[in-house]
Amino acid sequence: MMRNAVVLLSGGLDSATVLAMARAQGFACYALSVDYGQRHHSELAAARRIAQMLGAQEHRMVKIDLTGFGGSALTDSNIAVPQQPTEGIPLTYVPARNTIMLSLALAWAEVLQAQDIFIGVNAVDYSGYPDCRPAYIEAFERMANLATRAAVEGRTLSLHAPLLNLSKAEIIRQGSALGVNYAQTVSCYQADEAGRACGACDSCRLRRAGFAAAGMDDPTAYRAA
Amino acid sequence: MMRNAVVLLSGGLDSATVLAMARAQGFACYALSVDYGQRHHSELAAARRIAQMLGAQEHRMVKIDLTGFGGSALTDSNIAVPQQPTEGIPLTYVPARNTIMLSLALAWAEVLQAQDIFIGVNAVDYSGYPDCRPAYIEAFERMANLATRAAVEGRTLSLHAPLLNLSKAEIIRQGSALGVNYAQTVSCYQADEAGRACGACDSCRLRRAGFAAAGMDDPTAYRAA
Repeated sequence: MMRNAVVLLSGGLDSATVLAMARAQGFACYALSVDYGQRHHSELAAARRIAQMLGAQEHRMVKIDLTGFGGSALTDSNIAVPQQPTEGIPLTYVPARNTIMLSLALAWAEVLQAQDIFIGVNAVDYSGYPDCRPAYIEAFERMANLATRAAVEGRTLSLHAPLLNLSKAEIIRQGSALGVNYAQTVSCYQADEAGRACGACDSCRLRRAGFAAAGMDDPTAYRAA
Repeated sequence: MMRNAVVLLSGGLDSATVLAMARAQGFACYALSVDYGQRHHSELAAARRIAQMLGAQEHRMVKIDLTGFGGSALTDSNIAVPQQPTEGIPLTYVPARNTIMLSLALAWAEVLQAQDIFIGVNAVDYSGYPDCRPAYIEAFERMANLATRAAVEGRTLSLHAPLLNLSKAEIIRQGSALGVNYAQTVSCYQADEAGRACGACDSCRLRRAGFAAAGMDDPTAYRAA
């Protein structure tokens, strides 16, 4: 019998790769997307397509409005998405986003009796996000193993972050080998409704450089400048 | 200048007491309630009243629908609230609820630049909930101190659980001394729209026994059986 896993799926390049990896490892994958009021809402439509294309058992979307907290260019329309690289933690960092998304994954995992959660965080190209660091992932896993009914009953939860130490080029190579169609993914922080990318934000720059470094054509649809 | 704190406020007896304690310690309190589709929805109306009565700077309600995950008598209308004490983890346990609520508190704390979060968990009368144990609280605090911009910049977050080792009677005595009007709080897992309690669920039993042990009149409004 296949083991169940919850896979956080944003609709971007990284999480699509993670879903393909989890499937390749033989997990029955339950894909979870979080509609938190993000500026680049078209990534959620991409998540829906990708979940289907990559054979998730089920795709669920949880809605939670983080725009009321603000504090990020992705959730506060008064903060512009930077068009140039910045020092330190970027303005696109969303307060506690990974913690919130992992908490929701933990809840669903508990209901599904899944002992595995996958997340596409990356510490190489992570743009300075605190909640993409290995020590953070370890601490979340440790906390999760004290938080749930499963923990009390002795079933261990594993938090998988298979991209943690990969470069963008390596992620793209491995995903391509697993059949991920990256034309269907949306990475841009300010993608338009059709999912077309700006080509200028941090996320677009990292993605474009990744395809170049992998020696592959960039399938991204960019909108006219 | 007063320091900001985020206080999780359910509208029940415990979290109302915690808000009063945080205020008494001199914090400017930002009360956060989570509408997660709970059966006892009238506790949220109680939270609104209590935030105002106990002098919170602001009260915010975040809506997130956990009924889609189910797995608890509080979020799945097909699972009845037990009317008798049960062995082990009760059916009213909501998967990962405290982790989700603390994650939201962490997000708001980060935006407010608050370094203190208060939660009313209790390990004495905790009814077997895994996410009310001291080791869980410590592990969440540790994770939170790796998760955020504040963490990277060296500001430490403290997670306060002042009720952790108090009996219900002690909680009621301390809250009463701080002026909490418990008639305004709703603890019952199946309170009606007016906030009237069933008198039979775990939460009602613990609450009633607490007033008795404290030697105080129980101000709870019970509905006719």
